[in-house]
Amino acid sequence: MATKVHVGMETEMNGNGRNGVPEMVKNNWKKRLLDFSGKMKRFTGCLWRTIWKAGREDPRRIIHAFKVGLCLTLVSLLYLIEPLFKSFGTSAIWAVMTVVVVLEFTAGATLCKGLNRGLGTVLAGSLAFLINYIATRSESVVRAVFIGAAVFLIGTAATYMRFFPYIKKNYDYGVVIFLLTFNLITVSSYRVENVLKIVHDRFYAISIGCAICLFMSLLVFPIWSGEDLHNSTVGKLEGLAKSIEACVNEYFNDPEIKENQDKSSEDPIYKGYKAVLDSKSIDETLALYASWEPRHSRHCYRFPWQQYVKVGAVLRQFGYTVVALHGCLQTEIQTPRSVRARFKDPCIRLAGEVTKALMELANNIRRRRHCSPEILSDHLHEALQDLDTAIKSQPRLFLGSKKNQTTSNMLALAAAHAARYKQEKDHGVSLASVKTDSSAFLEWKRKRVGREEAKENERKA
Amino acid sequence: MATKVHVGMETEMNGNGRNGVPEMVKNNWKKRLLDFSGKMKRFTGCLWRTIWKAGREDPRRIIHAFKVGLCLTLVSLLYLIEPLFKSFGTSAIWAVMTVVVVLEFTAGATLCKGLNRGLGTVLAGSLAFLINYIATRSESVVRAVFIGAAVFLIGTAATYMRFFPYIKKNYDYGVVIFLLTFNLITVSSYRVENVLKIVHDRFYAISIGCAICLFMSLLVFPIWSGEDLHNSTVGKLEGLAKSIEACVNEYFNDPEIKENQDKSSEDPIYKGYKAVLDSKSIDETLALYASWEPRHSRHCYRFPWQQYVKVGAVLRQFGYTVVALHGCLQTEIQTPRSVRARFKDPCIRLAGEVTKALMELANNIRRRRHCSPEILSDHLHEALQDLDTAIKSQPRLFLGSKKNQTTSNMLALAAAHAARYKQEKDHGVSLASVKTDSSAFLEWKRKRVGREEAKENERKA
Repeated sequence: MATKVHVGMETEMNGNGRNGVPEMVKNNWKKRLLDFSGKMKRFTGCLWRTIWKAGREDPRRIIHAFKVGLCLTLVSLLYLIEPLFKSFGTSAIWAVMTVVVVLEFTAGATLCKGLNRGLGTVLAGSLAFLINYIATRSESVVRAVFIGAAVFLIGTAATYMRFFPYIKKNYDYGVVIFLLTFNLITVSSYRVENVLKIVHDRFYAISIGCAICLFMSLLVFPIWSGEDLHNSTVGKLEGLAKSIEACVNEYFNDPEIKENQDKSSEDPIYKGYKAVLDSKSIDETLALYASWEPRHSRHCYRFPWQQYVKVGAVLRQFGYTVVALHGCLQTEIQTPRSVRARFKDPCIRLAGEVTKALMELANNIRRRRHCSPEILSDHLHEALQDLDTAIKSQPRLFLGSKKNQTTSNMLALAAAHAARYKQEKDHGVSLASVKTDSSAFLEWKRKRVGREEAKENERKA
Repeated sequence: MATKVHVGMETEMNGNGRNGVPEMVKNNWKKRLLDFSGKMKRFTGCLWRTIWKAGREDPRRIIHAFKVGLCLTLVSLLYLIEPLFKSFGTSAIWAVMTVVVVLEFTAGATLCKGLNRGLGTVLAGSLAFLINYIATRSESVVRAVFIGAAVFLIGTAATYMRFFPYIKKNYDYGVVIFLLTFNLITVSSYRVENVLKIVHDRFYAISIGCAICLFMSLLVFPIWSGEDLHNSTVGKLEGLAKSIEACVNEYFNDPEIKENQDKSSEDPIYKGYKAVLDSKSIDETLALYASWEPRHSRHCYRFPWQQYVKVGAVLRQFGYTVVALHGCLQTEIQTPRSVRARFKDPCIRLAGEVTKALMELANNIRRRRHCSPEILSDHLHEALQDLDTAIKSQPRLFLGSKKNQTTSNMLALAAAHAARYKQEKDHGVSLASVKTDSSAFLEWKRKRVGREEAKENERKA
């Protein structure tokens, strides 16, 4: 400790040289300045990386940012250009407000907010006029009390309504706007005479704002929630396929290779299923916005967002099985290599079939095409029976091994899941109603008619 | 078909009786009226049930609704009472707007929005004045172009900033308010002379609105996000404990009893873990709001919201294992009763220990107390070793049974999970890094020091 301090002092003394204190202060300042500039450089670098990353992850963000800038400029012209300002007056500010609040990233979100805003404004305006009409007949104090009571009651009722699940899901923003507009009009009507004129002007300004937002959102480089939901579903199917493949490969590969892989990058198994596990809220938001979107591609009459939510729920359920399979890989008790080798071929074949089925489904959903369920199910069925035979032919091996059966059982579970993944009909009550053997496939075949109906709904192409 | 039509005509004729067409029309109207009143009754009943349910689920919702109503009435007084109106003028409307937008259900959410609004307004005001100061020196047309360009650039940049993960998580609302205020001030400064005066008045009005919101939210029946997060964590622990208990009981009980249970109500196993599975977004929102809340109970210095998020992640991981355990219960291939009976006692004991550990943790978290980890871990460890011994002593049995090993292995997984549930340190990369045998407990004991540190953080009591 003492040495260090001494060394530090020595270097400081060396740095100060002959001139003593002033030189020291100067150097101190220089050092701080260098420190500061270094920090600034690091901060700038970090900022630049964040900016770059946000744009590279999704280039549509840049487009959206420019769209918002353009909309705001357009709407500012109502103020900046003389003739426009003369016809609108200061109400034009409401158009600016509307653009800031309504224009969202996707077309569905903008439509949802825009229509909610419109509906809320119209309803609030009507109610406020009714109350205003009743209140004008009485004298000033009574009128103030009446307005106060109305504000209290409507405020309480509207806030309470926001807790109803149906309202909360679809019209939450609309209720907020209703409350806002109602209060603004009711309260200002007490002091301002020509409320009707003000409301009229504001309504026009808000309409112009909404129109500009909808035009930008629906017609200029539109970004569709439905498209995002579609792509995320495809990505989730592919991720699960990769996870299962990686799981089985890791189980049957040499431990050295495994260790090398672990070091080189993130665990590919975890990477495959992590997007699936917590997808519920994202899926539901995207589906909600997609439900507001009009038909936008020639593939479907109306976007089948409900089917995507159901597929998402089944995929999450499948994902939980893959997590359990992954957990089995990392237990302490491991089956000897010699035992694993005996089941290597049927297991890898089954995993390959499951992966193939998932990838096939992903590709068909991506291209919005039908796929023939027979081919997928028959191959899967064969592979499953092969594994079953292999396990039953070697019962003695299981004396020492706990692990292998778990894995094969899990694989069977996974296979059954993969085959069932579109039977979205009976998934309300329990997540885990899964059959693991071939009888499940027979049942599945019986249910094919029902599934194809669901697919019809989903494609409608 | 023909018969039906005939019958229909006959009854109609009977109804019409002697008077012919006028009687028919009258009856038709009566029928419609009855139909309509029936529909109205059903609608009213449904509405009443919805209202009742929303209040019974969480009575704090009613309190919140009244708080909003009261705040709005208070803020309306700025308009309704003569002396107050004289000092504020029409700017008072901004206080109304602030209350509608800022006052949220929990104190944390209100603080988050209120401070975001304040910060956004102040920053936007400063920037707008800077731009206004530069613009006033030039002539009218140049000034308009300059303002338009500023609106475009700031709008684009601010919108793009909303995509940065850190900004999106903490300051999304603040950026929207910044954009709103900046545009309002910049654009209106082109036409209105005394912008400074307007901004001054609005700032006071907004401050009053914010102050009323914060007073109501923090001091009158406050609702804390942190409290919700705390209770939901306790509930999740208890739910998982019940799921595991029900799983093991169902496995060892007679199938008749099981069927009776299925019919009577919702699957108790699914009911136990369903809240855990999709808790990520809810937990993170609650934790975000909790992070804005000041100390509000004498139990902790500052609410340890980060620890709750980590515990939530570990509980989700545990939940996935319970889903897999539940899946094993419902497979087609079931172990014979005779085989199950041999493992009944150690399995039930182990499940009981896991359940006990979870319930103990739930109770201790609820009361914000330390619990002694030794007792929990030692009993769990013993039960686990008993099961291990039981399995190893009966190797022949496994020739015909696939199922039992899976269940016991899953139980071991569950036990290991339960014991590890607070080792929140190493959960960034992989969800499934789970050890299943006693070596995991040894490792766990080594890590105890680390865990107790985490607990210290969590309690800080």
